[in-house]
Amino acid sequence: MAGKFISERNLKFLLYEVFNVDELTGYPYYDQHNRKLIEMVLDAGMKLAKDIYYPILEEMDRTPPEMTDGRVKVHPSVRDIMSEAGEGGWIASNFPLAVGGEQLPHIVAAACRFIFSAANYSGSIYPELTAGAARLITSFGNDRLVSTYVPNMLNGKWQGTMALTEPQAGSSLADITTAAALTPDGYYRIRGQKIFISAGDHDGVENVVHLMLAKIEGAPAGVKGISLFVVPKNRLDGDGRLVPNDITVSSIYHKLGYRGTPITELSIGENNDCHGYLVGEPHNGLRYMFQMMNESRLGVGLGATAIASAAYHAALAYAKERPQGRNLSQKDATLPQVPIIQHADVKRMLLFQRAVVEGSLSLNLQCWRYADLAQVTSGEERQESELLLDILTPVAKSYPAEMGILSTSQALQCFGGYGYCDDFPVEQYFRDMRIHPIHEGTTGIQGMDLLGRKVLMHDGKAFDLYLAVIEKTVEEAKTVSELARQAAKMEMALEQLRQVTLHKIRQRSNSTAEVFLADATLYLEFFGIITIAWQWLRQAVAACIAMEQRPSRKDRNFYQGKLYTFRYFFSYELPKIFGLQQRLVEAEEMPTVDMEPVFFTEN
Amino acid sequence: MAGKFISERNLKFLLYEVFNVDELTGYPYYDQHNRKLIEMVLDAGMKLAKDIYYPILEEMDRTPPEMTDGRVKVHPSVRDIMSEAGEGGWIASNFPLAVGGEQLPHIVAAACRFIFSAANYSGSIYPELTAGAARLITSFGNDRLVSTYVPNMLNGKWQGTMALTEPQAGSSLADITTAAALTPDGYYRIRGQKIFISAGDHDGVENVVHLMLAKIEGAPAGVKGISLFVVPKNRLDGDGRLVPNDITVSSIYHKLGYRGTPITELSIGENNDCHGYLVGEPHNGLRYMFQMMNESRLGVGLGATAIASAAYHAALAYAKERPQGRNLSQKDATLPQVPIIQHADVKRMLLFQRAVVEGSLSLNLQCWRYADLAQVTSGEERQESELLLDILTPVAKSYPAEMGILSTSQALQCFGGYGYCDDFPVEQYFRDMRIHPIHEGTTGIQGMDLLGRKVLMHDGKAFDLYLAVIEKTVEEAKTVSELARQAAKMEMALEQLRQVTLHKIRQRSNSTAEVFLADATLYLEFFGIITIAWQWLRQAVAACIAMEQRPSRKDRNFYQGKLYTFRYFFSYELPKIFGLQQRLVEAEEMPTVDMEPVFFTEN
Repeated sequence: MAGKFISERNLKFLLYEVFNVDELTGYPYYDQHNRKLIEMVLDAGMKLAKDIYYPILEEMDRTPPEMTDGRVKVHPSVRDIMSEAGEGGWIASNFPLAVGGEQLPHIVAAACRFIFSAANYSGSIYPELTAGAARLITSFGNDRLVSTYVPNMLNGKWQGTMALTEPQAGSSLADITTAAALTPDGYYRIRGQKIFISAGDHDGVENVVHLMLAKIEGAPAGVKGISLFVVPKNRLDGDGRLVPNDITVSSIYHKLGYRGTPITELSIGENNDCHGYLVGEPHNGLRYMFQMMNESRLGVGLGATAIASAAYHAALAYAKERPQGRNLSQKDATLPQVPIIQHADVKRMLLFQRAVVEGSLSLNLQCWRYADLAQVTSGEERQESELLLDILTPVAKSYPAEMGILSTSQALQCFGGYGYCDDFPVEQYFRDMRIHPIHEGTTGIQGMDLLGRKVLMHDGKAFDLYLAVIEKTVEEAKTVSELARQAAKMEMALEQLRQVTLHKIRQRSNSTAEVFLADATLYLEFFGIITIAWQWLRQAVAACIAMEQRPSRKDRNFYQGKLYTFRYFFSYELPKIFGLQQRLVEAEEMPTVDMEPVFFTEN
Repeated sequence: MAGKFISERNLKFLLYEVFNVDELTGYPYYDQHNRKLIEMVLDAGMKLAKDIYYPILEEMDRTPPEMTDGRVKVHPSVRDIMSEAGEGGWIASNFPLAVGGEQLPHIVAAACRFIFSAANYSGSIYPELTAGAARLITSFGNDRLVSTYVPNMLNGKWQGTMALTEPQAGSSLADITTAAALTPDGYYRIRGQKIFISAGDHDGVENVVHLMLAKIEGAPAGVKGISLFVVPKNRLDGDGRLVPNDITVSSIYHKLGYRGTPITELSIGENNDCHGYLVGEPHNGLRYMFQMMNESRLGVGLGATAIASAAYHAALAYAKERPQGRNLSQKDATLPQVPIIQHADVKRMLLFQRAVVEGSLSLNLQCWRYADLAQVTSGEERQESELLLDILTPVAKSYPAEMGILSTSQALQCFGGYGYCDDFPVEQYFRDMRIHPIHEGTTGIQGMDLLGRKVLMHDGKAFDLYLAVIEKTVEEAKTVSELARQAAKMEMALEQLRQVTLHKIRQRSNSTAEVFLADATLYLEFFGIITIAWQWLRQAVAACIAMEQRPSRKDRNFYQGKLYTFRYFFSYELPKIFGLQQRLVEAEEMPTVDMEPVFFTEN
């Protein structure tokens, strides 16, 4: 029997009771769906997760991809995953009907991705990356590119990737050197090297389609000279046959976790015979890629949340079963031991995990709800949703990525010594998790994105909207007497956020860019805690409303658990902002700026 | 060339400039040593670490112990490690001359252990465990036990272990069931099962000597019925030959990290022919074992610090070399990239690691200094040192264990994607580190030890002494104008600690044991941050004094680095106490106590 890896009850609570998906399916764009159909989709997703993804979770970790004679061999079930994901419509689930998609609300598609990633993160990456790459072609490619590549990606026969990173240009995309030279035939000749390309090649598909950044000869320096290309592993010749396109895998990486997916190093155009096809306009590649990156960043946050969810449910199941010790007021050693879930310190660890998992999931779905609203509305309403999505994205990426490390670590801790051994899957979850603060923009990059771009953009409009939506939740919470204390804490937190942000904006005028952004990562953490507190307040309002409807005993337990986790968050997590605030407004000491590299050296 | 894994300059700074080892060698017990001899010992330790330990760091991880036909095969170099550690006098370094030791100050022995553990944690465990087990026999065993077992342990021919844990009794030692039956011949017949026994058997030694907890038939229930036994793998028969003692290895564990050391499951006395020899008095086993456990707890803290040190130095070396991006105020993409150590956010990550590593090391050496003072003084002075050692031990164990996870994680982060791959050793350090909050008493256990026992014992005398020594450091700091701001912060932190502790003590009278101890882990974290701040203040005072002596340029850089790291700690780490304090004095919400197990369940 599969272990439990997500709470379906919670997923439905968020979709229906917090984010009101029924409202979305009232808009014409989504009106072919309704709650019953959505339930069927979720049930089918759970079935697929249990039947295909979860059973090979450990196997994919223990038998990682291998490279022999330039070919990357992955677990044989990857082929099943891709074909199920393709034929079942999962890759195309939130694509428009017009390109063969299901036109499912993004929030529902995200819920399904969450299910798959929680069952088997490595396994879920193959279709997820393919969807992201296909969407990029659909959004910015010409009809020929769309018709040539998208159908085989959406049906799972071809793998999609995102090929950005180069050895000399990791976080600094301005410095990529992969070159593209226009040929008289209209295609570009591509030459360069890419590293850390997830699913960059494997034998679970017939072809791989790279969405690749490169610079056209003579392009401006820096990010303004970057263009986006479709560069397939095998290209179609004049007769519609696939022929090799001069891309070779030079190596695959041996990784701490996330071992079911090959991460590849690619040599492109070594024989000067790699064809690439420009997407959109020259030199606009980074802008296009950012669409995919933002989606990927939400995907990373969701993946981190999913792994933390699986670890939490494993720890919870263990804590219910494992007898150890006695209640602290009971010292009679002849009485039987109690399950560790009865100890307050274990409950604290479980509440922490639940707070991180369900808070992060709530934020992620919140983001997709804004994406849906941007899809179905227009004008001012649409712009507001887009701005909120923009400002929340770095938080939705980094909070689960960073806190997920701590959450899986606490899950492992619940198992004691067994958690450190591979008898249980938690040590794998702990390893799988650690990639998330790195890929799709490190946490440091997210911090600079939030403070250096998102908070300032449109004269602070996104930031103001953000404050306003939280204030709205506070007003709702104030109408529920049980939530009064936390509503007041939330207001105080918002006031702190305002003050800190004002301080930072002043610092930006009075000081250097380096000083202004030196603590951007801390600002991100501060902002993140407040954002998750908001999500917990939203959930608490929904739970209190539900509690008034005389729920069943099962449901009462669920809502009670929600409310205790919410209380936990406001008592144990939210106060962390006090220390961060102290630091963020302290202007006298800038040790991270003033420290000279030579002071790290002793000889 | 071996990578750098510790700062020798820092180790000497702590030994001589902060903890004044020269003063210790002035006491008769240690007067056969002097600074010159100690330097020679440290140099010899570094040489051994570079020659024997470090070169097999990765190899021991990649080729973990294997069990075939009941025999545990370890890396062939384990034999070299044990013989070098034995013959070179490292195992016996701080044993009395009377039993064949070197009678080196404990603080110097700890410095050497730090060197070995930083070079190769798994490798260092074999001699370290042996020393701990031998000390237990020396302290509490009769002459016959000492003469039979200790010499071969100190010379590295026999492995020592600590055999406490059983399947049904992990953290709850009261529940062990391993049985001991007295025979007419004076020895006990032992029967039971032990799990998670580090180095419980291996082919790098001729014999293994278990210091084992068991219950004599008819003993009282709970911890008051626990006795301590020497139970060798092979016992000496009447003719002085080693014969099997009916202990078999039932399995070895496959672990996340710490893979160079076998962790074993032992079946004892399956054929009713396992002889055990009582150490000291019956039913006093736990008290005796606690001596070893305390030493082991400091050892765990030191091991965690050592791994974090190696990870920090790896990250530092990489950050100096790796070009990526440009200074934030420099946007000209045609200029060359700068090494990432120039970015404030990378310096922040490095300062964090240095703060954790050098703060933890300082605390650990502080503890050993108290152990040394307890060794050389008597009466009130001795008792004070012992009480300070007692109250600091849970902090010295858990702060590096918990913060070490974050510190190695930040080291990994400095490498970007490469940190997640096994091309660099940081991913191993991240895995090796994770054991520390678990073994030798979980962090939860340490929290209860601190708040439930240490703070209260002798009517709070240890706690008062602790406050007094910190106040003394504050007074010293106040005489240095450069440290005024941080001295004031330290005073405020002490005041918060007083208030929180008072609140907790009141809670103890007004409430249940469960409520009193529910947040013991948070109290430990709170107490830990304040303790490390104290150690940084001590170091800052020493650095400021040194800066007045017109040091060389190299030394100036070192002291400047110290002072910036100190400032970092007071600006970024110490403020974390504000959030913890908020929680710790909040009496209205006890979600971890009130949460019922059923609220975690949804069906």
